Amino acid sequence: MFVTLNVDLGVRSYPILIGGGLLSRRDLLEPHLRHRDVLVVTNDVVGPIYLEPVRALLAGSRVATAVLPDGEQHKTMATVNRVLDALVEARFGRDCVVLALGGGVVGDIAGFAASIYQRGVDFIQVPTTLLAQVDSAVGGKTGVNHPGGKNLLGAFHQPICVLSDTDTLHTLPDRELAAGCAEVVKYGLIADGELFAWLEAQAEALLRRDPAALGHVIRRSCELKAEIVGQDEREHGRRALLNLGHTFGHAIELQAGYGEWLHGEAVAAGTCMAAEFSARLGAVDPLEVDRIRRLFRRLHLPVSPPAADPGKFLSAMGMDKKVVAGQIRLVLLDSIGSARITGDYPSHELVDYLREQFVR
Amino acid sequence: MFVTLNVDLGVRSYPILIGGGLLSRRDLLEPHLRHRDVLVVTNDVVGPIYLEPVRALLAGSRVATAVLPDGEQHKTMATVNRVLDALVEARFGRDCVVLALGGGVVGDIAGFAASIYQRGVDFIQVPTTLLAQVDSAVGGKTGVNHPGGKNLLGAFHQPICVLSDTDTLHTLPDRELAAGCAEVVKYGLIADGELFAWLEAQAEALLRRDPAALGHVIRRSCELKAEIVGQDEREHGRRALLNLGHTFGHAIELQAGYGEWLHGEAVAAGTCMAAEFSARLGAVDPLEVDRIRRLFRRLHLPVSPPAADPGKFLSAMGMDKKVVAGQIRLVLLDSIGSARITGDYPSHELVDYLREQFVR
Repeated sequence: MFVTLNVDLGVRSYPILIGGGLLSRRDLLEPHLRHRDVLVVTNDVVGPIYLEPVRALLAGSRVATAVLPDGEQHKTMATVNRVLDALVEARFGRDCVVLALGGGVVGDIAGFAASIYQRGVDFIQVPTTLLAQVDSAVGGKTGVNHPGGKNLLGAFHQPICVLSDTDTLHTLPDRELAAGCAEVVKYGLIADGELFAWLEAQAEALLRRDPAALGHVIRRSCELKAEIVGQDEREHGRRALLNLGHTFGHAIELQAGYGEWLHGEAVAAGTCMAAEFSARLGAVDPLEVDRIRRLFRRLHLPVSPPAADPGKFLSAMGMDKKVVAGQIRLVLLDSIGSARITGDYPSHELVDYLREQFVR
Repeated sequence: MFVTLNVDLGVRSYPILIGGGLLSRRDLLEPHLRHRDVLVVTNDVVGPIYLEPVRALLAGSRVATAVLPDGEQHKTMATVNRVLDALVEARFGRDCVVLALGGGVVGDIAGFAASIYQRGVDFIQVPTTLLAQVDSAVGGKTGVNHPGGKNLLGAFHQPICVLSDTDTLHTLPDRELAAGCAEVVKYGLIADGELFAWLEAQAEALLRRDPAALGHVIRRSCELKAEIVGQDEREHGRRALLNLGHTFGHAIELQAGYGEWLHGEAVAAGTCMAAEFSARLGAVDPLEVDRIRRLFRRLHLPVSPPAADPGKFLSAMGMDKKVVAGQIRLVLLDSIGSARITGDYPSHELVDYLREQFVR
């Protein structure tokens, strides 16, 4: 059994297929492949487990592979260049397909490489982590980090299909499963109070990988993301809500060193910071901030950032992509289920908040 | 006096301003800048001449510069990374503008960097060579070379404005002026027999930089390109005609080593090859091929490729972006003023043609 959700983007619309056992279903990918050449991009952790089943799906295509080192610290232009070299080496043309097999890092690198090879070739996401299945594989954001900032280089490049085999989550380390939950909490906070309450009721079922619980959060997250991306593909407005906790979170990732914190871990702590800062500005009720922290703790996720210099942390936040005319735009929480993006807050409040956070 | 042409691409529409003395007209750029941060990308030949006048145009903006080495051999990802580093170093946000000041290489690199910095920032072209003013600055193709092939990496990223100051052509070396003429001949061949006849009448006026002659070819070339790009931005159809001579030409550039032949020189010889091959297939009249060669010679442009191994040359052609399902699609000439793109020709004819061309 599987479900199909559609991301409505005119000529760039595409299906998200979600279910168990999809990696043995050749019929699902074939309409998107039509015997075209395929480069499979994966990493040295996922590849040994899933490369062979995926190859079997691609019978009929000429297949090349690029196996990357695992980890956020490798999400760089240098790694993108390795993927591009593999495409040139295989002499693949503009009609080829790049298939990303792995988590968010693999998808971001492979999608970015696909967006710039021959000025853009087709791209399929086969996410194998919870974080990628609920968030990063959907919506067309691709890119890599720069020593100066997270995801500073990249492109909007939508996949032609997302194939989420929920069975792959059985091989996912606990730490990565928890990290994926952070983005699900985010959806609840920005747009769906019921999802947040459901998570409060079902946190332990999720962590023990109950298939019904996993299926529910993946479907619901993709529904919410597909709706938002369909309204605002290029993030001129509402899509920015998806960045709740991410400006703080990206600063955590940059300060700690890429790869030290998983992205989802940094988003959890960053979301707590965004919620605290929202409460400080009088937006969200402090009791709701406590609820948020409690849920993250039950999901085995961090609720505060590592020690940092407040000035350097602010500087790192200032290299996030949400800066307009020098002001850091932030997603603020009004209540569980409702958020807004704004640059309209007193700058000194952010400085004071960071000072209190880090100077203890 | 200047003229404004418009490239009609919906929300991505933009003006091309053409005339003398535009680099002293602050009023022309201001509506596109509105005091935003600007990175000027130029090279070590153009920068010393035009960087100061351009800085004066940008009073009111925070300005950073990236000065690149000159030449096609530097049109690489490594050079793109230098531009990206300059953007991060200046801590420019998503609302900044990248301004390309120079020829086709500078424009291609700067535009590509603009397309991937923070998933895309605005971009202004200030072309200072004839080739860039008649062709490369218009239409949104950006990118760099890969050791495996010309322009293999890149993006479609339209500028928000093209400012062509025809006075800059007075400082252009003769060889570069002639190279730019090759693309003007191309427009005549694919779409405007009258332009071709005009070139036959006015070749010497062009080479001695008669302002009226230069103004005419720049305006007419931009009109033709704007019309074609407006119909087919992403080259799914008619836009491919603009590649007449380019599949042969790119192979010449790759075989000779990037930077040995100017792009326009390779296009001239490549166009002669495309015309000869078209005649061989019975498309164009051989007498018209002679007319084409005569015109290129009067413009001091090469009419045949350098010595090469026919197998390697064919292989280099096969890495061009016009390959679909293994077949090299070529622009064939039917008559002066009319061309078509096709993969429907006997492959052995191309093999035989190259053998006769190179094995003498």
